[in-house]
Amino acid sequence: MEIIKEESLPIAMHREWRGKIETAVRAPLENSYDLALAYTPGVAEPCLEIKTDERKSFEFTRRWNTVAVVTNGTAVLGLGDIGPAAGLPVMEGKAALFKAFGGVDAFPICIGSKDPEKVIETVALIESSFGGINLEDISAPSCFEIENELKKRLSIPVMHDDQHGTATVVLAALKNALKLAGKDIAKISIVINGCGAAGSAIAKLLIKAGAKKIVMCDRKGILSEETTEEGTYKRELAMITNRRKIKGKLSYAMKKADVFIGVSAANVLKPEDIAAMNEKPIIFAMANPIPEILPEAAMKAGAFIMGTGRSDYPNQINNVLAFPGIFRGALDAEAKDITDDMLVAAADAIAGLVGEDELCPEKVVPDAFDERVAATVAEAVRTVAEKTGVARKIRN
Amino acid sequence: MEIIKEESLPIAMHREWRGKIETAVRAPLENSYDLALAYTPGVAEPCLEIKTDERKSFEFTRRWNTVAVVTNGTAVLGLGDIGPAAGLPVMEGKAALFKAFGGVDAFPICIGSKDPEKVIETVALIESSFGGINLEDISAPSCFEIENELKKRLSIPVMHDDQHGTATVVLAALKNALKLAGKDIAKISIVINGCGAAGSAIAKLLIKAGAKKIVMCDRKGILSEETTEEGTYKRELAMITNRRKIKGKLSYAMKKADVFIGVSAANVLKPEDIAAMNEKPIIFAMANPIPEILPEAAMKAGAFIMGTGRSDYPNQINNVLAFPGIFRGALDAEAKDITDDMLVAAADAIAGLVGEDELCPEKVVPDAFDERVAATVAEAVRTVAEKTGVARKIRN
Repeated sequence: MEIIKEESLPIAMHREWRGKIETAVRAPLENSYDLALAYTPGVAEPCLEIKTDERKSFEFTRRWNTVAVVTNGTAVLGLGDIGPAAGLPVMEGKAALFKAFGGVDAFPICIGSKDPEKVIETVALIESSFGGINLEDISAPSCFEIENELKKRLSIPVMHDDQHGTATVVLAALKNALKLAGKDIAKISIVINGCGAAGSAIAKLLIKAGAKKIVMCDRKGILSEETTEEGTYKRELAMITNRRKIKGKLSYAMKKADVFIGVSAANVLKPEDIAAMNEKPIIFAMANPIPEILPEAAMKAGAFIMGTGRSDYPNQINNVLAFPGIFRGALDAEAKDITDDMLVAAADAIAGLVGEDELCPEKVVPDAFDERVAATVAEAVRTVAEKTGVARKIRN
Repeated sequence: MEIIKEESLPIAMHREWRGKIETAVRAPLENSYDLALAYTPGVAEPCLEIKTDERKSFEFTRRWNTVAVVTNGTAVLGLGDIGPAAGLPVMEGKAALFKAFGGVDAFPICIGSKDPEKVIETVALIESSFGGINLEDISAPSCFEIENELKKRLSIPVMHDDQHGTATVVLAALKNALKLAGKDIAKISIVINGCGAAGSAIAKLLIKAGAKKIVMCDRKGILSEETTEEGTYKRELAMITNRRKIKGKLSYAMKKADVFIGVSAANVLKPEDIAAMNEKPIIFAMANPIPEILPEAAMKAGAFIMGTGRSDYPNQINNVLAFPGIFRGALDAEAKDITDDMLVAAADAIAGLVGEDELCPEKVVPDAFDERVAATVAEAVRTVAEKTGVARKIRN
């Protein structure tokens, strides 16, 4: 990314920081009296209270505010399967973002197994230390099994950010983009290119939010019931999308489409694909670091609104708009789960932060550093959690 | 413990703290440039370096300074098997002590299984997030299997503090006590009452440090080869102790003993047991919160030196003298292991901090809040790690 001129700079900085997070002590430990309160013998009292009622662990320890950032290193950034230790710098960065943006204490847990069963078992066994689980950079299709099973087994909220964080921000951006284009989500035609963790979750959340016409493409072309292997997650995706049962390549899917959402690879979208779309084409090309089409080329080809994952172009569709606030809200509510309703509320909250007066094709999402974002998202998520019976803790 | 007058105070304080540790951010995250360095795309660079050489995770992340405080909640304080969530306040307290005393970033991992295999597997699978593993409050005999197996399987140092932290401080106290009594560790007779994690490790470390005559007792009396069940860890202990193969109760073992070390239960030692000992009896009665005999009664019965686990009597034999410095030294050396040689060096360092001029029956160990302790222990541990090939990182 052009913002970093020198490739060696991140290495030098990481060496200097010697870690992007650390622990800090909240209880005084200056003398024997302090020790007797915070450690033995005083600590026995909260232990016994929690033994009787596990929920009190959210009252007497940091569990209420603590999230595990869990990976097995199989799909780290765009680098692929680099292993758990090599994924640690990313997990640590994510933990730092959790604290800086959402006030959430997050801790990296890098698991040395590609077997979904083992990842599930490991996370389930360490549940008591945490108030929530953020799954990160786990490859598809394992990530689906791991998330689904953990959501069933654990009593704390679980979210795979590559899926649902991304989907939430895309939905937020799409809502504002459609407002500008004067189009209705129920009537538009959407093409999602990329059927991994992000693409799959985007499709499902857009359907939840009212989208009716979605076509998904992978490297081979359009997903359709007939051409996709039975028993795979792609077959399931094909069954909830592509109502017209069309077949062909991405270029064919793009004809008369209103929205292109790319979570795939660099430069796979051609200017002529945009030219073939309906009027006021909306393009979210989020491949990192090089998008499916560069903004300059997209605008030239007729794009009405263009978003990427990059901070050096307008409309950065960045997960940091979603995950800190989603977990902040879920933790504040002591939520049992993170539901689609909570994600849609988060998307609405993000979209709502771009005021009528500033909403324009160059600004469909708030700035990543807009300080209102996490608190506004948290409030929306918490309110829905309370209303839908997901919250264990209700405000007066 | 008398120091806390009101039983409800620890509860009130724990509620107020809302956690005794939290995370803190070390890398700047103020703007897009910061984010590009610490997160995407910059973070890809250290990831790729670690992919090639896992040791670089100690250079580019906080792993170099991070220890997991691992329990399954089966032997928490004197409260017994209260489960993983109820153990969390203790693990969090321990993590706070690690930071406050040793500058170590420690994080609680509470595992929801009593099956040693599952505990081992879980810790082994999350190894990449940590620079060391501190096992805590796991019941015997599982704790032996768990520690031994993890020491074999992991490439980072593993220590069960209830065993080796305690043993290290006992050895330190004993060295100074013997100096005052003018006795030789190779010649004295030692009785250890309690054959759990602590008692077992104390016996082994004292043997390593030159003790020849040790007798161990459990609730039923003296451990001996003939009376202890085959294949158990107690049989193994019986085989390395009790050379004279005596049988009987604790009172019988105490006749002509020089040292009593109690890691058992309140009030099990009688004044007449002390009266039956050799001259200048040394009594370390460490049951918590009520020792095997109260100091007043022990002194009246003729004890020469008396130590307990309590902060309201002289000679507090407290693990906090050992574990922060042991891990500090092991982490600084990027040690592969924590060996007996490192523990003996730690004990010597602790003992050496009581100067000739202040050494007296009321002061055989330094104060828990003596600021020199952790650094001095760390230096000694690191030096031995370097000399014995356990260190991966050697100072110039």
